[in-house]
Amino acid sequence: MIASLPDIVSWALGERVVSDVLYDKVRAVEFCDGTVRLLDQRVLPGILRYETYTSASEVARAITAMVVRGAPAIGVAAAYGAVLAVTAAYARAPGDWRAAAAPDLALLRQSRPTAVNLAWALDVMERTLRDVGEGSPIPVIEAAARRLHDEDIAANRRMGAFGAALLPPAARVLTHCNTGALATGGFGTALGVVRAAAAQGGITMVYADETRPWLQGARLTAWELVQEGLPVTVIADSAAAALMRSGGIAAVLVGADRIAANGDTANKIGTYGLSVLARHHGVPFYVVAPMSTIDPATACGADIPIEERAAAEVLSCQGVAHSPVGAQAWNPVFDVTPAALIDALITERGVVTRPDVEGIARLLAQPGGA
Amino acid sequence: MIASLPDIVSWALGERVVSDVLYDKVRAVEFCDGTVRLLDQRVLPGILRYETYTSASEVARAITAMVVRGAPAIGVAAAYGAVLAVTAAYARAPGDWRAAAAPDLALLRQSRPTAVNLAWALDVMERTLRDVGEGSPIPVIEAAARRLHDEDIAANRRMGAFGAALLPPAARVLTHCNTGALATGGFGTALGVVRAAAAQGGITMVYADETRPWLQGARLTAWELVQEGLPVTVIADSAAAALMRSGGIAAVLVGADRIAANGDTANKIGTYGLSVLARHHGVPFYVVAPMSTIDPATACGADIPIEERAAAEVLSCQGVAHSPVGAQAWNPVFDVTPAALIDALITERGVVTRPDVEGIARLLAQPGGA
Repeated sequence: MIASLPDIVSWALGERVVSDVLYDKVRAVEFCDGTVRLLDQRVLPGILRYETYTSASEVARAITAMVVRGAPAIGVAAAYGAVLAVTAAYARAPGDWRAAAAPDLALLRQSRPTAVNLAWALDVMERTLRDVGEGSPIPVIEAAARRLHDEDIAANRRMGAFGAALLPPAARVLTHCNTGALATGGFGTALGVVRAAAAQGGITMVYADETRPWLQGARLTAWELVQEGLPVTVIADSAAAALMRSGGIAAVLVGADRIAANGDTANKIGTYGLSVLARHHGVPFYVVAPMSTIDPATACGADIPIEERAAAEVLSCQGVAHSPVGAQAWNPVFDVTPAALIDALITERGVVTRPDVEGIARLLAQPGGA
Repeated sequence: MIASLPDIVSWALGERVVSDVLYDKVRAVEFCDGTVRLLDQRVLPGILRYETYTSASEVARAITAMVVRGAPAIGVAAAYGAVLAVTAAYARAPGDWRAAAAPDLALLRQSRPTAVNLAWALDVMERTLRDVGEGSPIPVIEAAARRLHDEDIAANRRMGAFGAALLPPAARVLTHCNTGALATGGFGTALGVVRAAAAQGGITMVYADETRPWLQGARLTAWELVQEGLPVTVIADSAAAALMRSGGIAAVLVGADRIAANGDTANKIGTYGLSVLARHHGVPFYVVAPMSTIDPATACGADIPIEERAAAEVLSCQGVAHSPVGAQAWNPVFDVTPAALIDALITERGVVTRPDVEGIARLLAQPGGA
């Protein structure tokens, strides 16, 4: 059940709403009345604002601009964007809608380079379209997009259960970036594990790296957890090492933007450093991601394209510049964690410990297909 | 030679002044006409503003509030603060100025807990005062404070030469926080090594961790380097691991706030993580600090008091809150790098490779005293 805007607005910043089903209400992406609605994650938690898009090119621009972010959420947004592309194409050229939709679908595919869920979702949509016969393709593709969205949520719930089983009761965990309902179709990947664990043995503390430069941890993860009454402590990204050394961290839980065939994992910048620190301190390091994040066509981490964004994102904070004119910045959005530093990969099909080529291949070969 | 305010003001943000003696002009701390002047480092580089203090208690508050920061600079500020304390005490109670000055000296000593240079500088001042006979103590203590300041700059220049000898020509280095003229009496510790290296074999790039939550790297280190025409690239703190993995980083250079007798080193939060990452990547990790930062009375890192500051510093950036109400934060200002992860300690007396109890003891026993 997807909340309407008035419901959402009532969860204003600081107005804590305790609900055990809140994660069934927060949605980063909605498809309503033939439009795509995205919760603008650039301005959360200060402002709760949905933007409405009526064309695929607008959705592509919104993905590039990070109105929506998080690999699975980007995939869902792209799927609904494909619905807009096909709807417009069918209106313009009912006899040749496939060709008419192609440029918009290409725009969506190019909107961000690293998260493979984007290309995966568009592949699913395009396969669906291939089987459309005579008549309007719109009901078919809309149903496919909604199914993809629902399946992402269901996958997250399964991952949550698998991951929670790996945590001790009342665990303290460390997470990076935002991997919750906002980053996915709903419920979340790494944060879904936190949600599932909280509902079972309880969670004593979720430490959230603030995750510069976009502060997804300090803004989005903290907001999701505060809304649900779960304890969250934000730390500067650089404090993670001291936190691990202080002891008592049961696991580092992160999401993924693309997992190569050998298990190497691209995720938010900083994830790789956490994996090195976790191994150094003997803290289990878990990647939580749906099968749609695995890219069997990418052999290893070195083959994953890493997006670099504008220097200004680093040289400023929340839009306010703080560095002197003349300073440069390096702003890679992701880094690659080698599979050897990942203690377990948690997917909706199960858990692969110490993932490698064979482990990933076995996962892909399981019923359900890639 | 210390620049006057009009000279300083001409180095406005973005107005690059190239000068090979600039580091003889920027001063975080000055003593002028019986007042302590501090360059307000909370508002740099956007605003260049000196604050003038006429009492020791004001100086203590300014240290607590981080108007001045950086262990050696705090030591210099405290020394000049002691001059104000003694001057006021002598005016109030010429016959009993020692007792009258004691409360102010205690205030200064308590103004921040971790940097041992603060206590060290006040110890130097108090030893000086013990030898004062009849008549005014003011000329004696003012001369002692100025000498302490001059000696800090001279020590930094020696450290610069020692450190530069460890770097290859045209090196790329990574640094954390600010360890330059602003953090010291002048010239800098780790950034002094950069300055010395730049003047010799050249520096290809200084990567500066932005250093949340106060952004000393993005604001202060970048500003110092831009002013001198040296290349600087700011990175999010969490990008350091990916940077090291990309190769080509000749060394990580950091300062210190307190070095225990066994070589364990407290420095800005994040330093410890860098030391783990540097070892993992085979990048030399150098601590650059004057002898005044070594505290033989502290046996090991676990005995160093670590300041924790307000949660709001993490939950906001440059004074603008970005986290939701209800989120907590953990804000340790420093962490401790174990001596075993330090490849060399660079002091004005020379370089100690792989510092340990014996190496530190040999250093302390060298002519010059602790």
